[in-house]
Amino acid sequence: MNSKENSNWKKKLHEIIYEADTPAGKLFDVILLLLILISVLVVMLESVEHLQAIYGTYFQIIEWVITILFTIEYILRVSTVKSPLKYIFSTYGLIDLAATLPKYLGLFIGNTEALLVLRSLRLLRVFTILKLARYIGASNDLLKAIKASRAKIGVFVFAVVVLSIVLGTIMYLIEGNADSGFTSIPRSIYWIVVTMTTVGYGDIAPVTALGQFFAAIVMIMGYGIIAVPTGIVSSEYTNFKNHKINTQVCNNCNESNHGDNAKYCHQCGERL
Amino acid sequence: MNSKENSNWKKKLHEIIYEADTPAGKLFDVILLLLILISVLVVMLESVEHLQAIYGTYFQIIEWVITILFTIEYILRVSTVKSPLKYIFSTYGLIDLAATLPKYLGLFIGNTEALLVLRSLRLLRVFTILKLARYIGASNDLLKAIKASRAKIGVFVFAVVVLSIVLGTIMYLIEGNADSGFTSIPRSIYWIVVTMTTVGYGDIAPVTALGQFFAAIVMIMGYGIIAVPTGIVSSEYTNFKNHKINTQVCNNCNESNHGDNAKYCHQCGERL
Amino acid sequence: MNSKENSNWKKKLHEIIYEADTPAGKLFDVILLLLILISVLVVMLESVEHLQAIYGTYFQIIEWVITILFTIEYILRVSTVKSPLKYIFSTYGLIDLAATLPKYLGLFIGNTEALLVLRSLRLLRVFTILKLARYIGASNDLLKAIKASRAKIGVFVFAVVVLSIVLGTIMYLIEGNADSGFTSIPRSIYWIVVTMTTVGYGDIAPVTALGQFFAAIVMIMGYGIIAVPTGIVSSEYTNFKNHKINTQVCNNCNESNHGDNAKYCHQCGERL
Amino acid sequence: MNSKENSNWKKKLHEIIYEADTPAGKLFDVILLLLILISVLVVMLESVEHLQAIYGTYFQIIEWVITILFTIEYILRVSTVKSPLKYIFSTYGLIDLAATLPKYLGLFIGNTEALLVLRSLRLLRVFTILKLARYIGASNDLLKAIKASRAKIGVFVFAVVVLSIVLGTIMYLIEGNADSGFTSIPRSIYWIVVTMTTVGYGDIAPVTALGQFFAAIVMIMGYGIIAVPTGIVSSEYTNFKNHKINTQVCNNCNESNHGDNAKYCHQCGERL
Repeated sequence: MNSKENSNWKKKLHEIIYEADTPAGKLFDVILLLLILISVLVVMLESVEHLQAIYGTYFQIIEWVITILFTIEYILRVSTVKSPLKYIFSTYGLIDLAATLPKYLGLFIGNTEALLVLRSLRLLRVFTILKLARYIGASNDLLKAIKASRAKIGVFVFAVVVLSIVLGTIMYLIEGNADSGFTSIPRSIYWIVVTMTTVGYGDIAPVTALGQFFAAIVMIMGYGIIAVPTGIVSSEYTNFKNHKINTQVCNNCNESNHGDNAKYCHQCGERL
Repeated sequence: MNSKENSNWKKKLHEIIYEADTPAGKLFDVILLLLILISVLVVMLESVEHLQAIYGTYFQIIEWVITILFTIEYILRVSTVKSPLKYIFSTYGLIDLAATLPKYLGLFIGNTEALLVLRSLRLLRVFTILKLARYIGASNDLLKAIKASRAKIGVFVFAVVVLSIVLGTIMYLIEGNADSGFTSIPRSIYWIVVTMTTVGYGDIAPVTALGQFFAAIVMIMGYGIIAVPTGIVSSEYTNFKNHKINTQVCNNCNESNHGDNAKYCHQCGERL
Repeated sequence: MNSKENSNWKKKLHEIIYEADTPAGKLFDVILLLLILISVLVVMLESVEHLQAIYGTYFQIIEWVITILFTIEYILRVSTVKSPLKYIFSTYGLIDLAATLPKYLGLFIGNTEALLVLRSLRLLRVFTILKLARYIGASNDLLKAIKASRAKIGVFVFAVVVLSIVLGTIMYLIEGNADSGFTSIPRSIYWIVVTMTTVGYGDIAPVTALGQFFAAIVMIMGYGIIAVPTGIVSSEYTNFKNHKINTQVCNNCNESNHGDNAKYCHQCGERL
Repeated sequence: MNSKENSNWKKKLHEIIYEADTPAGKLFDVILLLLILISVLVVMLESVEHLQAIYGTYFQIIEWVITILFTIEYILRVSTVKSPLKYIFSTYGLIDLAATLPKYLGLFIGNTEALLVLRSLRLLRVFTILKLARYIGASNDLLKAIKASRAKIGVFVFAVVVLSIVLGTIMYLIEGNADSGFTSIPRSIYWIVVTMTTVGYGDIAPVTALGQFFAAIVMIMGYGIIAVPTGIVSSEYTNFKNHKINTQVCNNCNESNHGDNAKYCHQCGERL
């Protein structure tokens, strides 16, 4: 096999693995997707005790088959890409490695105690599913709207955290002595978060009249607060869409990227 | 009865059953609606043990009367429609059949074990109520807005599912050994969904400090995430309405379907 | 006292009771507001057993004083208004009567059994607080936006009810035999409503794997559905505000009620 | 040290403490932020019993160090500011004092009973974290949108409170005799708030058929009501952003503050 042939093979493999334009590339992506889904499913089912007891051996076989297939995929990815180091240290590269390595490490660190720790590492394979993000693509508008409101939601989340600490401390003072689960400030803060986000487990709940009154205020407050992030995303998204809806095209120069209220073309001055 | 008379009868019945323009057609729809509501109510009440013990016989009688009336309606629908096969295999045709058939099957499959399975099939009659959708009609705008945002909500729901699996696995690692219900990854994922959607049953709740800290983060995250679908629908609906509000009509050619920022009629070039 | 003087008195009293322009009218409204708040508070505190045991007599005295004052107010309202019958049978008139009558009826129907039924009637006095709606007033924009979206939210709520019945029936089939509270279809529907609205008490919660899987789907569905009413109100309100923001005034005829995209005044044809 | 030198020192300290333009000022702010975070963390951890038992002494030392540093900061703030009284009685001034004073008072009021009350005062130090608000700043748009909708949300919250009292009273009448926690009207109102805000602890839950039916109605109502505040904030924010997006600048006089639909500059009449 001469060097040119080798280079041709590399190019073809790169096309199959990294692109989805050719039938072979599409097939590769579908098979990979199925393998990832099966691997996630097996990890999930293994954690169910009575299933593990019956089908444990089958799970082991499936895991090894998938691990070997993922290893082959990883080697092919590294060998066909132009800059292997860039791939290895990219997010996807590290996730791909984390999906295969733990299983091999399990062979050398042999006792059960260590395997339990290993198992937790192995579960990182679930992250491999994030590869699916590649198959979405069409939702760029949505992602842009979320990105645009990221900073504002960040400020909002920070304010909620500060508010939770203040309110949690007050609640600890009110219900701390009653036998209702408010045993420490961190637990009270946990309760405030559970309440303000309207989750409401009920594992901790106020029992005193004052505590219930204060809880009701916190809830109505949370009711108003929940409106803020929704308002932000909703508004950003509306603005984003409005800009896209603008379909003004200059009759003179065909420029189409005009502001919403533009009366004259910003390229040639023609009346729009 | 000659063929022409027969055809006349068929036409009249078709008008009564499929249309609601004539007084007879309206009466037919109202009676059908009442029968559907009664049948749903009876199925519901039959499942309440102490009511079944007292009124069981009456429920049986009502069910048989309604089943026979539904059967007559089904036969009339099939016989008066132009293309009976098209109706039979339409969604409504299959639902109409599923609302009557199980009751008759119950006569031939006689023992109690089988009746229990049959009962579950009979409950499909509840779907008959979906016929009510015909009486809404006026909410087209709303349905269009939901349809327009369907794809984006789909992508969003998918992202939430992936996130739930990842977070559920992490939570299983944190709380798996504590006696707090996180006995397997699927159960942990169930808990993540219960928490992120802010339902919060409390049947499974974290007990360790780390678990409660992680839970608080998941909740605040869910708080931010809940904003996304609302933002999407809200925005689509606003855009949809804005387009409708546009009431520009060309003075020259009476064309009214103009873009929001159109300055000149796109049909005749007249200044709007 | 001649007829003219009497008429003057009536006019002045009408001004005080029905209007809030004069200092006396304002004072009357504030005192009435306070009395209503106290009466609601007393009804609330009376239902707390240990407070009733200690302060029962004081509660009785306060109630009688307020009842008599409310009776005087009712008589004055009837006697000063132009068309007393119209007032008596208006919503406010009936509420005002319901706030005083039960207390007097309690004198004639003397035994405890009857008093218990009476007590429930007396609680209707809480509705008197709805008079407070008069003091809001400034929130007309908000009320109009809610009214505008009332029909659409109605259709939405109806769809949610139908969906709840269908999903509740399915859940009853899945979890009916397990010992998890899904004892009848109505209870299952109750659970669906508790889940879909993200309330999640946890008094009924699925225990089987299939039930939990189905519950997770219902929750994610509810997650998407909750976006719809918010989107409707948000959009209606935005449209409503946008129309108000439009500040175009015709230079020629000072007409200001123009559509958002109007280029020429619809009254005189002047370029806006 | 002459008076001029003294004044120079004061000016420099004022720059460091009150401004963040110089490197020293930035460093001061970062250190202060860290101290506040540590002090909040220590207060939180002290309330956890088993941590207090082990690390109690270390917590005491850290608290004293921070208290002394905060005292120095407070003295410097008072002495370098132009009008000390204005600072002392400002919100920040009072919070700064409340963060240091309780610890010193603890020395004089020595017994445990009093310390418990003192502890509650000491917790006010958590409010010091609100100083963090200074570091946000960039979120002015968001704050303005919230402020603009404050009045409307106020009216909404008031309506929710009135509705809660009315519905709570009805629920007390329905479930009051059943053994399900609805022991008084205030508790029933607490339950209504827990339900309408979709928190749903499950500590109180209806058990009768009528109670569950009524609860389902309350939930679906809450479902619709939750749309209102979101709609308000969303709409205000959209309007606010739309006004900012308007980038029309008059070609003649460079005036840029035009209404959304303005066709001619409101300053010089030039066609925009």
